[in-house]
Amino acid sequence: MITVNENYLKLKAGYLFPEIGRRIRAFKEKNPNADIVKMGIGDVTQPLTPAVIEAMHKAVDEMANIKTFKGYDDDGVGYEFLRKAIRDNDFAARDVQIDLDEIFVSDGAKSDTGNIQEIFGIDNIIAVTDPVYPVYVDTNVMAGRTGAAKDSGGYEGIVYMPCTAENGFVPALPKEKVDLIYLCFPNNPTGAVATKEQLTEWVGYAKENKAVILFDAAYEAYISDPDIPHSIYEIDGAKDIAIEFRSFSKTAGFTGIRCAYSVVPKNLKAYKKDGIAVDVNPFWGRRHCTKFNGVSYISQRGAEAVYSPQGKKQIRQTIELYMNNAKTICDSLTALGYTVYGGVNAPYIWLKTPDGMGSWEFFDHLLENANIVGTPGAGFGTAGEGFFRLTAFALPENVTVAMERFKKL
Amino acid sequence: MITVNENYLKLKAGYLFPEIGRRIRAFKEKNPNADIVKMGIGDVTQPLTPAVIEAMHKAVDEMANIKTFKGYDDDGVGYEFLRKAIRDNDFAARDVQIDLDEIFVSDGAKSDTGNIQEIFGIDNIIAVTDPVYPVYVDTNVMAGRTGAAKDSGGYEGIVYMPCTAENGFVPALPKEKVDLIYLCFPNNPTGAVATKEQLTEWVGYAKENKAVILFDAAYEAYISDPDIPHSIYEIDGAKDIAIEFRSFSKTAGFTGIRCAYSVVPKNLKAYKKDGIAVDVNPFWGRRHCTKFNGVSYISQRGAEAVYSPQGKKQIRQTIELYMNNAKTICDSLTALGYTVYGGVNAPYIWLKTPDGMGSWEFFDHLLENANIVGTPGAGFGTAGEGFFRLTAFALPENVTVAMERFKKL
Repeated sequence: MITVNENYLKLKAGYLFPEIGRRIRAFKEKNPNADIVKMGIGDVTQPLTPAVIEAMHKAVDEMANIKTFKGYDDDGVGYEFLRKAIRDNDFAARDVQIDLDEIFVSDGAKSDTGNIQEIFGIDNIIAVTDPVYPVYVDTNVMAGRTGAAKDSGGYEGIVYMPCTAENGFVPALPKEKVDLIYLCFPNNPTGAVATKEQLTEWVGYAKENKAVILFDAAYEAYISDPDIPHSIYEIDGAKDIAIEFRSFSKTAGFTGIRCAYSVVPKNLKAYKKDGIAVDVNPFWGRRHCTKFNGVSYISQRGAEAVYSPQGKKQIRQTIELYMNNAKTICDSLTALGYTVYGGVNAPYIWLKTPDGMGSWEFFDHLLENANIVGTPGAGFGTAGEGFFRLTAFALPENVTVAMERFKKL
Repeated sequence: MITVNENYLKLKAGYLFPEIGRRIRAFKEKNPNADIVKMGIGDVTQPLTPAVIEAMHKAVDEMANIKTFKGYDDDGVGYEFLRKAIRDNDFAARDVQIDLDEIFVSDGAKSDTGNIQEIFGIDNIIAVTDPVYPVYVDTNVMAGRTGAAKDSGGYEGIVYMPCTAENGFVPALPKEKVDLIYLCFPNNPTGAVATKEQLTEWVGYAKENKAVILFDAAYEAYISDPDIPHSIYEIDGAKDIAIEFRSFSKTAGFTGIRCAYSVVPKNLKAYKKDGIAVDVNPFWGRRHCTKFNGVSYISQRGAEAVYSPQGKKQIRQTIELYMNNAKTICDSLTALGYTVYGGVNAPYIWLKTPDGMGSWEFFDHLLENANIVGTPGAGFGTAGEGFFRLTAFALPENVTVAMERFKKL
C-alpha cells in the first residue's frame, strides 16, 4: 500500500501567498471593478534593464545556431562565465575570497533555501527567527524535522527566536543548543539589518556549538548603510560555519527569469553521528547534480549582464526607484501616525497595525476599504501578529495612490 | 552538533555522467588533439527551431516593457497558456482528458522524477527496472528509503526488475508487493517501448496492490509505431494509479532551456498509515509551491511555441533527423556484427558489448581507440553490464565519422 509523507499533514493551512491569492480572488469576484493596488507578495514591477534584455536576445540567437547552441549545463552548477562574475563582483570586490567550486547557480533562492535542509540529518535542531520566511519552516516540517503544529502558532521541536521592536528585529542568541540556524538579513519581512558586530556574535555561537548558519542575503542589494555587511563572509571565520544564498530576483528583477545561487564553502564541516567531520560542499554538489539539471542558458547570460558596467548602473537606478517608494511609504505612514520599521536598507516596510488590530483583520480591512493588498505579519509567525508587511516593489504611481487611500482610511 | 544526512554516504561513486565527464577530461589531458565524438550523455545537438526562437525573442521583449513585464508565475505551476497547450495537444488529441490543475510545469523531468518521492512515506517499497535512469534510485537512497549498497550492485531494500533481451527489456510484474514503481517508456537507456497490453498489466498490478506508477514519458515524441501508447493515461484506469512525467528537453531540444511538466491526476489516491485514502494532487501542489518558484517565462513561451502549427512541423523535422541517426547507427553496427536494440521508437541504441567485454572496459576501449564517448550500460544497473548506450542525438556528420571509426575498430 502506497503511503503518503504524513509530515505534510502537519502543515497549517496553505502556504501564505496562495492564501492571500485566494482572498484576493474572492474579493474580486464580489467587486469585479475594484482597482486593487498590490503591495503584498513582494514581486517586482519594473521591467528588466536594457543590458539584461540585450544579453538575453543574444543568448536566444545563440540557441538558434548549430555552432553556438547550448544543451545541458555540465553538472548543472552554472556556467563558469556567471560563477566568475559572481565571485569577482559579489565577493572579491568586498575582499571576500570565494572559489568557483563553492558557487552553485540555481533557479531561485526559494528552491535553495527550501532544498538545503535535505543534506543535513533529520535530528538536527532548527532555529528560525519569528517572524520568518515560511519556506524555511515548512520545508523542515515536510522533511519530518518537527513535531505537530502548536495551537499557539509554530511547530513543536523548532526553536523560534522572537524579533521584536525591542531587539530591533535582530534576535538574541538562543539559550539552548541549536544546530541549523536560518538568518535572513536584510530581513524579509521586517526590513531589519544585522550589523557586523551582531553577525560576529552569531558566527561565534555557531563555532562554539558546531552549528551551521544558513544566511539568506537575497536582499543585500538594498543595503544603503555602508557599515552593514552584504555577505556573512565579511565576518572572520564565517566560511567555516555558514552557507549563503543570493538571488537575482530582487537585485535585478528576475522573479520571472529564475536565477540565483548558493555558496557552500569548502571549509564548512558537518558531522556524522559518531562525531567524525565531513565536508558539506560535496553533499550539496551531489544533491545539485542528482535532483536538478541547471538553469536556462538565457537566464544565466541575463544574470551575467547584471555585472556589466551598464548593467550595474541600470539595476542601481531600479533599486533607487524602489527605495524611493520605500521612503514615500515610511514618510507618509509616519505622518499619519503609524509606527513603521524597515524600508531603509531593505525593500520591506514593517508596519504596526493600528488600534491593536490583528494582522489578517487589518489585511481584510485594507483590502475591503482601500483596495490595497499587503501581507499579514501573522503569516510570518506568531511574533508577526499585530504587524503588516508592505513592499516597496509597487509602481511609484500606485504607491502614491495607496498613500492617498491610507490618508482617507 | 550539526549532522549530515548520512544516507548520502551510501551512494556509490559519483553520479554516472560526472564520472564520464571525469574520464573524458583525463583522456583529453593526455590527448589534447583527439577529436572526440560524443554519443554519451544524451544531450541534443540541433538548435532550437525558428518558431521557438521567435516566441522567446518576443518574450524577452515583453520583459523589457513595464506594461508586459512578468514577475512570479503565480503558485509556480505554469502559465495557463502553456498548461492549456499541453492539455489539448499532448492529451486531448489522444483522447485523454486531463484537467489544468493536474498539470504542474517544472524546470525538468530530472527534477520532477527526483523530487516526487518526497511526497510519499519513507517506508514504501520502491521498484525500479534494471538498467535504470540513476536519478530514480539515487534520490531514494538520499531520502533514506534504502539500505546499504550491495557488493553485487544496487542497494538493499529496492526491488530491481531485470530488463533483458529475453523479456524484450520490458520487465515482468514483481512477485513481491511493491508500492512505488518507476517505469520509463520509451526507455532510457534500452530504447525499448511498452505495448498497450503490457501497460494494462502494470495498471492492473498497481490497482490490485494499491501501488503508484511513476511513468517517465520524456521520450514519447520518438515513438514511430502507431500502436504504442504515448501516455500511460491511454490505459483505462491509469489516472487512478499513475503520475506521468514529460519534458521539452528531448522533444524540442530544451536541455539548455529547462521546461518540463508532471501530471498528477486528481483521482490518484495514496494512504495514511491507518489506511485512510488521501488525494495525492494537493501533496505535489504543496511541495511545488513551497520548494519551487516556477519556470522562466521565456522558457514557457518557448514551450508553448512547440505546439504551434509551425513549431510542430519544425520539431518533427529535428526528431526525424535524430531518428535517421538512430537508423544509421543500428544498420551500421548490425552490419558489423554487433547486436543492437532500441533506436526505432527511441533515440537510444542499446548495444551488446563485443567479446564479452565489460561496459566500462568497452567505454575506455572506445574512447581510447576510436575517440568515441558512449555510456556504459553498467552505469544504469547490474543488468546493464555487458551493454553500452549510444544516443542518436549527435550531429549526422559525427554519426558518419563514428560509424567509420567503428568499422576500423
